Formats: sequence, structure tokens, C-alpha cells
Amino acid sequence: LAHQTDDIFETGGASALLLGGNGFLGRHLAKALSARGVSVRIYGRGAHRETEADYTYVQGDFATGEGLAEALNDVDIVYHLISTTIPSTSNADPLFDTQSNVGGTLRLLEQMKATGVNRIVFTSSGGTVYGNPNIVPVPEDHPLQPLCSYGVVKVAIECYLRLYSSLHGLNATVLRLANPFGPGNARIGVQGVIPTLFAKIAERAPIEIWGDGSVVRDYIYVDDAVDAMLQAASWSGFRLYNVGSGVGHSLLEIMRTVERTTGLTANAVFQHARSFDVNEIYLDISKITSETTWRPRVSLDAGCQLLWSAMR
Amino acid sequence: LAHQTDDIFETGGASALLLGGNGFLGRHLAKALSARGVSVRIYGRGAHRETEADYTYVQGDFATGEGLAEALNDVDIVYHLISTTIPSTSNADPLFDTQSNVGGTLRLLEQMKATGVNRIVFTSSGGTVYGNPNIVPVPEDHPLQPLCSYGVVKVAIECYLRLYSSLHGLNATVLRLANPFGPGNARIGVQGVIPTLFAKIAERAPIEIWGDGSVVRDYIYVDDAVDAMLQAASWSGFRLYNVGSGVGHSLLEIMRTVERTTGLTANAVFQHARSFDVNEIYLDISKITSETTWRPRVSLDAGCQLLWSAMR
Repeated sequence: LAHQTDDIFETGGASALLLGGNGFLGRHLAKALSARGVSVRIYGRGAHRETEADYTYVQGDFATGEGLAEALNDVDIVYHLISTTIPSTSNADPLFDTQSNVGGTLRLLEQMKATGVNRIVFTSSGGTVYGNPNIVPVPEDHPLQPLCSYGVVKVAIECYLRLYSSLHGLNATVLRLANPFGPGNARIGVQGVIPTLFAKIAERAPIEIWGDGSVVRDYIYVDDAVDAMLQAASWSGFRLYNVGSGVGHSLLEIMRTVERTTGLTANAVFQHARSFDVNEIYLDISKITSETTWRPRVSLDAGCQLLWSAMR
Repeated sequence: LAHQTDDIFETGGASALLLGGNGFLGRHLAKALSARGVSVRIYGRGAHRETEADYTYVQGDFATGEGLAEALNDVDIVYHLISTTIPSTSNADPLFDTQSNVGGTLRLLEQMKATGVNRIVFTSSGGTVYGNPNIVPVPEDHPLQPLCSYGVVKVAIECYLRLYSSLHGLNATVLRLANPFGPGNARIGVQGVIPTLFAKIAERAPIEIWGDGSVVRDYIYVDDAVDAMLQAASWSGFRLYNVGSGVGHSLLEIMRTVERTTGLTANAVFQHARSFDVNEIYLDISKITSETTWRPRVSLDAGCQLLWSAMR
């Protein structure tokens, strides 16, 4: 295994800053870090509204850099999970997208350099940076041809992390995540496909399927994604990995899994396909599994059972 | 040959806007367009200072977008050759680099969309977008791992051109250029290796060689680069090509060629290698030569003779 270093959380007393720590993934990560004895500081626009006793909060706007300097004070590692946009709306204003997110990340990197914080883990987007893949599973060295500004921004940020690692010795890990799912999606409004299907089937509501349901995606259980983020804290140099389940599932397979898990029957309503959807994408995870000890542990079935238990 | 369309300059009366048209490449392109009957409008910060009767000028700052709307009025095609930075200094302020160049390009694209200008040719950088290549000659689908902010910016602009082509039907060509050389470099201060060697050998001045002179680069004669830019005007959809000579030359080979061309002997002074230099890079041009009629026509020897004739 290449470049493994000591676990930076092992000795205790470590401190992590989570940019976007109030999101779905951030909440799970915060909990896992806290359980390992890491002091968790959460930065974001809503950070003042949702205070929990276990964490400290710095309220700020990533688009302007407000509050970032304060947030960086005395932290050992930064988890960069923040974005001012989401994929489906990012094309409406690419200028804002790049100025706020690429610009925001560069302000962050300059402040990290100035304050000596030399460790960052960035969640990139396995579903958008490749665009419509020539091959599945898609490996990391596949051409990057994003079909939304959100993906272009992720590509640019990845490049800058590699550059700062090369120029300034930054320890930077890029994780190109598949679609994470698990308990808690619903709380923040961006549910994702799997929790949406569970919610609709539980309400006996019609389930809209775009196209014929053959669209294939990569779904990773949130604990597996968090596990990769925890391990990445101790890696050195620049590293970039796909983090997915290793398998693709069609929307119809997801629906059948949800039916099996709940014992209920879905009321599927088929709609016209959306032209901007990539037909099939899932990630080649052989690089991370060969270079590190990380593996996806939770299958789609097991993850759906955990999610359904939590929802009931 | 794929996607060839009619020559948009054939019928006469066409109008081209050159962003950065006062640079080395821009001057050659302006001259070639003008010779084909195309009306040439030049946009840039220095555009008001260097007026030539054959062209019209719009003075503006790409970093703020000043003057762009006026410059776009009634043009058929935009040649985007402008940059607010150069590779060697871009790392000093990546935030300015991305805000001015990626931001500037997005403002440009939005204004093109608003005014119905749907054709653009962008000169990307074959020498910086790949970083340190795993293989030479380097093909277009090689991973993009730039070692300077200038290269990151080029990658992001390429991605946005592909995106606008996909979303809005923009006809966009990206030309990843090798190092262009030819008469006229000296006029604007950024000479490049070849004109510098000619100037120094002519003055009997010492020639500083970094490292052992084994560093290999791809040098393309300016007329060949301009020819690709002229042809690209008529291509449709999104296209991306390496544009190089097809061969690599070491610095020592360049020095020997300059000696042979001038009949003079170089006074070489060897210096320590610069750590940030890529050792060997030249471009695989099989994609453009198989999909279009473009070929590099001028060899290093012939180009050096043309340059030396022009200098004397």
C-alpha cells in the first residue's frame, strides 16, 4: 500500500474543519469524526442556525470568504464539502459558479498556506466530472468532459489542489464520489433517488420514472463514503480516487430493491427521458482498493435495509 | 474527413474579432485573415496604441469585460487568444488568473449567446495542460495535470467551451498549440526560445542553457499555427486538437540548427536546471491530421531560415 502514513486522529486532540458540514455527507462525517475524538468545527451559511453541542460553528459565506480565516484557526485538516451550487442549477449562472467555488477554494488554499494548515480532503463528483463516459466502469484517467458547470468547477478545483500540492507541499486528497445515500438525506431537502423512492412508496404516492428506468448510476452507502474520508485524512502528497460501490444499478433495480425492502409495491409512472441525463455511469474503484485498505462494505440491499430501518 | 463545412471566409464580407490580436500570434492571424478579405477587429488593452489602417480596434480590459459588447457587434467569429497572465507568473496569483480569464471567458460566452455570435476558436496551451506527460508524443486524451495556474485556466476554459457547445449549439474549436515561432516575436518582448537564440548568436552574446540542454519541446512555425486557426473557422460543433510540429527537439538541437542557419558559433553557458521544467513534451497530432486536411508544412530548418531572413 502506497503512501500510508500514521493515522492523524490516532493520538487524540486533532481538530477538523468541515466546510459544508451541515449537509447530508457533512453531518455523517462530523458524527464519525467526533466519535473518534476529533474536535469538529463546522463552517457554512447555515452554521449558526443548527447548533449541536458536540461541534463548534463558524458562520460564513464561501462565495465571499467571510469567516474563513477564523474557521481555519488551529485546525489540523480541512474537509472541503462545500458548494454554492448544485448540478441541476449550475448551468443557469456559470460565472457565479466559477467565481464563488473556484475563487472560494483559491482563497481557502491561500489562507491555508498562510496559516500553515497543510491537509485537505475534497469531495469531487464522480457523477459529473466525466460527462458521458466512453466506458464503464469509468477509471480516473478517463477524459474529463463535464456536461454541467458544477462538474467544470470540480475539475478546476481538482487541478488547483494538485498544483498546490506540487508547489507548496499541500497534502490533498480528491475523492470523486458516487451518489451517497443513507439516513438523513430527507432532512436537508436534497433527497437523492433512493430516499425519495422510499418516501414515495411509504406514502403510496406515484413514483415518476424518467425514460424507461434503464438509467444506471453508482450508489454508495454513506458510511462507506465517510470511511474513505476518514482514511484520506492520513494520506500524504496528492491523491485522487474514485469512491463508489463498484457496481451500477438501473433505476428499475433500485425500485425493485425498495419494493423488496419495504414489502410494498411501487406505483411507477413512466415519463419522457430527460435529454441531459447520462445513460450509464458507475466508477472503477480498482485504484483506491489496490492502493489503500478502503473497500465498500455495505451493499445496495444492506444499505436500503439500514435506511428503511432509520426512516420508520 | 469529419464535420468539414463550407469555408465561412469563402463568400467574402466575413468579420472576425481577435481577442488579444496585438500579440505575436494575433498579428500573424490578423494579417492572414485580412489577406483573405476578412474584416479584422482587434480587442485588447493596448488596442488603441498600435493602430494599423487595415484593422479596426476596440480598447478594453478582458479582466472586467470592458468594451466586449461593443467588440462583438456584427462579427461572425471570435478568435480567443487573450490572457491576463503568462505561464511563468500565473502561480503568483491564481485567484486573479481564474477570476479574470475563466470569468472573462464566461462573460464573453454569455455575450456571444445574447448577440447570436456562435463561432469561436480558442488557443489553448499544448505545453501546459498536460503537465509532465506519461508518454510522448502526448495525445489529446492524456490526463490533464497542469503544473501552473495558466494551464488550469486553459483546462477550465476548454471545459466551458465544450459545455456551451453542448448546451447552446456553440461552434467551438480548441487548439492546444505547441510553441509557435517566427518573425515578429521580438516586437512584443516575449521572444520564445528560438528568436532569443537567433538574437543572441547574432550579437555574439553568451547563450544561457538551463540544465544540460536535453529538454525537449515542440516548436511550430507560426504560419502552420495560423493555418490551423483559419481552417478551424469553418468547423462545426465542438472540436479539440493538438496542433504541433509532430516532432520534439532538444534545446541543443535548436542551438545547432541556429548555428547552421546563421553560420555562426554559439557561446553556450550551461546553468542549473530549473526544477519546474517538464523534461520532454511534444504533441501527438494524429487526431487533427486524420480528421482534417491540416498538416504542419514548415520544418524546424525551413522555419529557422524564414525567421533568420526576416531578422536580417
